[in-house]
Amino acid sequence: MEPATHQTWRRSFYYLHGAFILPKRFQSGQAEHAAVSASPRVRPRLLVSRLYQPSNLRDVGQESRLAGQMTCKSQRLMQQAGLIHPSNPGCYYYLPAAVRSMEKLIKVIDQEMHEIGGQKLDMPSLCSADLWKASERWDLMGKELFRLKDRHRADYCLGPTHEEAVTTLVAHQTTLSYKQLPLLLYQITRKFRDEPKPRFGLLRGREFYMKDMYSFDVSEEAANQTYESVCEAYSRLFARLSLRCVQVQADTGNIGGTLSHEFQLPADIGEDHLLLCGSCSFSANAETLSSGRTDCPQCNTGSLVESKGIEVGHTFYLGKKYSHIFKATFSSAQNKPATAEMGCYGLGVTRILAAAIEVMSTEEEIRWPGLIAPYQVCVLPPKKGSRVDKAAVFAEELVQTLGEAVPHLRGEVVLDDRTHMTIGKRLKDANKLGYPYVIVVGQVALEENPKIEVVCQQTGETMFLSKDGLLDLLGRVETV
Amino acid sequence: MEPATHQTWRRSFYYLHGAFILPKRFQSGQAEHAAVSASPRVRPRLLVSRLYQPSNLRDVGQESRLAGQMTCKSQRLMQQAGLIHPSNPGCYYYLPAAVRSMEKLIKVIDQEMHEIGGQKLDMPSLCSADLWKASERWDLMGKELFRLKDRHRADYCLGPTHEEAVTTLVAHQTTLSYKQLPLLLYQITRKFRDEPKPRFGLLRGREFYMKDMYSFDVSEEAANQTYESVCEAYSRLFARLSLRCVQVQADTGNIGGTLSHEFQLPADIGEDHLLLCGSCSFSANAETLSSGRTDCPQCNTGSLVESKGIEVGHTFYLGKKYSHIFKATFSSAQNKPATAEMGCYGLGVTRILAAAIEVMSTEEEIRWPGLIAPYQVCVLPPKKGSRVDKAAVFAEELVQTLGEAVPHLRGEVVLDDRTHMTIGKRLKDANKLGYPYVIVVGQVALEENPKIEVVCQQTGETMFLSKDGLLDLLGRVETV
Repeated sequence: MEPATHQTWRRSFYYLHGAFILPKRFQSGQAEHAAVSASPRVRPRLLVSRLYQPSNLRDVGQESRLAGQMTCKSQRLMQQAGLIHPSNPGCYYYLPAAVRSMEKLIKVIDQEMHEIGGQKLDMPSLCSADLWKASERWDLMGKELFRLKDRHRADYCLGPTHEEAVTTLVAHQTTLSYKQLPLLLYQITRKFRDEPKPRFGLLRGREFYMKDMYSFDVSEEAANQTYESVCEAYSRLFARLSLRCVQVQADTGNIGGTLSHEFQLPADIGEDHLLLCGSCSFSANAETLSSGRTDCPQCNTGSLVESKGIEVGHTFYLGKKYSHIFKATFSSAQNKPATAEMGCYGLGVTRILAAAIEVMSTEEEIRWPGLIAPYQVCVLPPKKGSRVDKAAVFAEELVQTLGEAVPHLRGEVVLDDRTHMTIGKRLKDANKLGYPYVIVVGQVALEENPKIEVVCQQTGETMFLSKDGLLDLLGRVETV
Repeated sequence: MEPATHQTWRRSFYYLHGAFILPKRFQSGQAEHAAVSASPRVRPRLLVSRLYQPSNLRDVGQESRLAGQMTCKSQRLMQQAGLIHPSNPGCYYYLPAAVRSMEKLIKVIDQEMHEIGGQKLDMPSLCSADLWKASERWDLMGKELFRLKDRHRADYCLGPTHEEAVTTLVAHQTTLSYKQLPLLLYQITRKFRDEPKPRFGLLRGREFYMKDMYSFDVSEEAANQTYESVCEAYSRLFARLSLRCVQVQADTGNIGGTLSHEFQLPADIGEDHLLLCGSCSFSANAETLSSGRTDCPQCNTGSLVESKGIEVGHTFYLGKKYSHIFKATFSSAQNKPATAEMGCYGLGVTRILAAAIEVMSTEEEIRWPGLIAPYQVCVLPPKKGSRVDKAAVFAEELVQTLGEAVPHLRGEVVLDDRTHMTIGKRLKDANKLGYPYVIVVGQVALEENPKIEVVCQQTGETMFLSKDGLLDLLGRVETV
């Protein structure tokens, strides 16, 4: 150990036994008259015993109904692990660990959208009926639209998507020039859809988070290029999440337009039927092909194989459908008003979260795309009163050191302080929650050359590392 | 210039003239067939000409109505600068610069809430009427509640606040132990309130972002301590934003409970009337005192001075009002079920944004709390074809260097590339938008010892710095 490191180690030990790691009253259930120390600010330790991750929520009066709905793995695992809790049908509380994961997913999406020039805004959920009548979707959407009246009896819907709203916004800018196009505007907000049969937890809800992007271009050719660049961004996104995703030709539904693709994660539970060609890259939603077709319309040689998929993204080339109705124009290079070519592009944010868990997890244990796991590391100190009790100090020091030596793991390391439980039971819990790295501090930590046991969830591998080896391993963990 | 720095400078120059700073087609209005380069990934430059900050949105059919509503400075400045755009009454589009500012504000709030042990969750907007009937607020809230029915004719409201929802959630955890208390749960989500007279832009809207936290404690004494610690966190928050905030005694309204404070920013436009004692720390909302009272009820010697304020935060000690109704219990140290003591604590997120602009700006120019300005730095290269045209390269290099040499300013530096406009006109724009630091690259940048002109918005000071001096200055800028 280098002198400098040694000093850090000492200092962290000092802090650990000081009063302000957690404000003192948080360290036991008894409230004490300890003033909240103003400075120096020490980041509170993350203790499993204090995390609101209630894994056994009772369901007053809903047991039977929900039991029937608990029809897929991700829903079951997410409720068991205290990630989500059902509220109304199709509506969920997102509990703290799920919020952490979702915020990370949103960061990754933001990065990919910025990369292609996307700019983030935020549009009202309350959408005026007038706009939806102008696009004729007020009637077309039927019962899927949540509708309400305000105190003046004016009609509104809760936006399930925002073509009308964003096109109106862009139309209001009288000075939009061709030089400012392509314009890519997106938001990541809560959306509402009164599903006839909400089910599968976050996979088909009535209230959910969606990323919706809208593009405005000078020409059909330019719009096609934008369409391509969004599809590429989606592919990069799923690659970064280590999710195998298939881009298939899709139906345009009531959004309108002439070109559409779905991004599907192949999964047994999927509600979509896909047809994939064995010989070429052709893939399509079965809806788009005539029923019973088995030969590939692209290469004419391959035969189509059926698969099920969970739709996690959808892209549409809209043409001038909305820009014509709402008069979204720009001044062309010839200084004449021209109508913008549009596209729209959705990603189901909460759905990606659940779908990732659906396809990556075992029946009993959650597995995450590493980048968006709620926490990266869980450290398990030995059971209190056990033979290796002394290693507890080592575990606490380790948590502190990790926070200092690996800056991007700050806030990512959890200490399972429930030391009245055996290591085995806590390890089982940690495996269930799927922390990418579980560190067991036991017997080998007390040896002359202390070793740390590390369980790598992604590979299932268990390693015994020196502290330097551990820092090296964790220093390479990718975070967002 | 050090050799290493020099090399960086060279490299950035190379990148600047490469094709992939912005995907090429984004550099002009004409779409070109340039494939989006996959790697190496270079962060796109931020160009003023490309930012969606439409400062002159037309209001089809709403001009007259909106003109009448444009009753305060923050609304006018925010609309003029392209930060917000009106949608339905009391509902706004938050445009990209406003979203950036809001996301920063949310980060600061998150930090302060985590500091006192707060855990973030996210509850449904659709709240079942059953819950609101149980608390009797279904009737009590009257027309302020947005109400709707789903396809099965079940009644819902759009949550303006979530005491019912969060208490139900906590009640569902059958194993909650006194050891887990205090439990502080909060969310930062969109809230809905059907205001009779929405006005003042984001200061009184019908759809807005709020941070609402709910606390659960073992005893009244412990709940009071939690209450104190939240109030202290609020004070720290406003101090970090350089906003003068007064904590005043308040009425508990229909939330219920026995103790309540408001956090008020003194401002002429404020809708609340405050009474502050000249001699002691006493301050209260005038509503809570008998009308016409001028002597201080706390020190009995001072006299009360009236002030107006914008309410940006509100804290309530709720006691057992909701925990009793919804049976939110925990097992005590004696292993007996006991009802939790609750508090609730709001912060108006979008309101803080507008209120900060209201109290800090001049009539014509926006000023931000530095920490949450949408961008920290704007660089102005010289006018094209002007005498000092050559300095343009220097400006572009500067933007690149800042991104590399000052990591926490990554994504915070904007280049005003509208070089067909004079420096003077662009400087005026930059002052209006209130970038904390505006850098003018002109004549002095071409001298033998190049100097950079820096306008510091907070102080109004103009400085001429060497590049090292500038890096030193900007290296000390606090960001979140």
